[in-house]
Amino acid sequence: MRARFEKMIRAAQDEICGAIEELDGQKFQEDAWTRPGGGGGISRVLQGGDVFEKAGVNVSVVYGQMPPEAYRAATGEQGAGKDMIPFFAAGISSVMHPHNPMAPTVHFNYRYFETDAPEGAEGGPRAWWFGGGTDLTPSYIFDDDAAHFHGTLKDVCDKHDEAFYPKFKEWADEYFIIKHRMNERRGIGGVFFDDMNDRPQEELLAFATDMAGAVVPAYVPLVAKHKDDEFTEEQREWQQMRRGRYVEFNLVYDRGTTFGLRTGGRIESILMSLPLTARWQYDMQPAEGSREADAIDAFRNPRTWVA
Amino acid sequence: MRARFEKMIRAAQDEICGAIEELDGQKFQEDAWTRPGGGGGISRVLQGGDVFEKAGVNVSVVYGQMPPEAYRAATGEQGAGKDMIPFFAAGISSVMHPHNPMAPTVHFNYRYFETDAPEGAEGGPRAWWFGGGTDLTPSYIFDDDAAHFHGTLKDVCDKHDEAFYPKFKEWADEYFIIKHRMNERRGIGGVFFDDMNDRPQEELLAFATDMAGAVVPAYVPLVAKHKDDEFTEEQREWQQMRRGRYVEFNLVYDRGTTFGLRTGGRIESILMSLPLTARWQYDMQPAEGSREADAIDAFRNPRTWVA
Repeated sequence: MRARFEKMIRAAQDEICGAIEELDGQKFQEDAWTRPGGGGGISRVLQGGDVFEKAGVNVSVVYGQMPPEAYRAATGEQGAGKDMIPFFAAGISSVMHPHNPMAPTVHFNYRYFETDAPEGAEGGPRAWWFGGGTDLTPSYIFDDDAAHFHGTLKDVCDKHDEAFYPKFKEWADEYFIIKHRMNERRGIGGVFFDDMNDRPQEELLAFATDMAGAVVPAYVPLVAKHKDDEFTEEQREWQQMRRGRYVEFNLVYDRGTTFGLRTGGRIESILMSLPLTARWQYDMQPAEGSREADAIDAFRNPRTWVA
Repeated sequence: MRARFEKMIRAAQDEICGAIEELDGQKFQEDAWTRPGGGGGISRVLQGGDVFEKAGVNVSVVYGQMPPEAYRAATGEQGAGKDMIPFFAAGISSVMHPHNPMAPTVHFNYRYFETDAPEGAEGGPRAWWFGGGTDLTPSYIFDDDAAHFHGTLKDVCDKHDEAFYPKFKEWADEYFIIKHRMNERRGIGGVFFDDMNDRPQEELLAFATDMAGAVVPAYVPLVAKHKDDEFTEEQREWQQMRRGRYVEFNLVYDRGTTFGLRTGGRIESILMSLPLTARWQYDMQPAEGSREADAIDAFRNPRTWVA
């Protein structure tokens, strides 16, 4: 499974970067890096593109010994004991921030994780799981776009299990909460799942493969549609403030980011998700009835985008 | 002590805001707010000034019941038990970010904290302490500025105890570390102290008062000197990236911020410290021998600015 998952995420990285380059006109720059403790990755970044301010697609395959506090950050589990835990983790993760405030940001991540018994322990527990998700962060709400994005994800989920989309949509609505912002989400969600190991690995690999394959059809048309939209300076500032919220979520709550900061991964790859630019304006409150107020409402009260 | 400390920080707020307004030409806007659990504060913010991009000076006096995890975040202590802890906290905190990349950012915070025994417990432990500090975050290093800033703080410390400056300078150098950035500090430090209760309250109030009084002479001349310096677009981008580091430190490590995010204080006042704008450019490495490389070196290897 380790080798097959790695092959899948590398193919997804090629396919998605190809589609983004075609839309943008500029090329991704590639950095290969190794992790001192074991493994490494390939980071691809397109910065200052024609359409994208910053887009990154990162593949990593890392293994070694994990401190128990990192294990807790990665899993949310308590009581991992005091021993170092041998682990293997492979994943693809990506965030794309377009220039135009009408074009949304997307994030996705698909990963496979294994742990072994602590060294010296004979046999003992051995765990594996799949996790991932794809979610959308617009600055302004377009109902058609939201329905297209969620609908594309739902179609792929339904092929595997009709219970998936409702469950994983709700999970995303819970996961992306910025608690200190009166439970604003960072965006309008999508799907999110974690710790999945209740089906054969074969089925979960097929599901993750199809979900990674859904990124281009779910997202690229939205950027193609809005990349040349007109906008005002105020709308650009609103986008920049939403990017500030993105930074807040990622640094304070995101499992992958906080896990990375604690385990000492390659920092430039971990923080690749942060926007090129962001803004914190004191006490900015959208006017009642404005498009900005509508966006805040959608972030506070998750909506049903597809039946 | 509660009343006297509150009086001191209100006077400091008036004095410091007055000096900044004189330098900037624009006025602070004031918001008074109350905390549902008890107490409140006065936030003053100057945004989009002539000299300052964003400057905030916040005074708060809050009290009530504190969850034990907030107590741990506030004190760094473990084992606070499971009971809610009655507390009183008064403080002044401020961050000022000038426009010009050659003019440094300053932060200061002086606070007084008290806890009582949990409700129902008779008598029991009762603790109080003083904490605070003033530190400088330049984008570019000017030796004279650093010596002036540290020297002014040292003179005030020396009046109270010659052991203070060396001890609190080192404490600041330890405190402002961004661990995930290979132990870069967010700036060139200053002084930092916490949990101080080993002297009469009277002496510690006098020390905090003098330190708050040192902010204007330590900082304002540096901004006056550099506010109209010429700079390039690249230097502005470097400043914006340093502001990104400021955001990283505050959201991930700063005690006051993480305490505020967990206790549900007034979020706009807690995050007033964040810069108006910030930047995350992928894998930006300063050229060897550049002024940016010199700054990074000063952030990684704290220097001695005054003998």
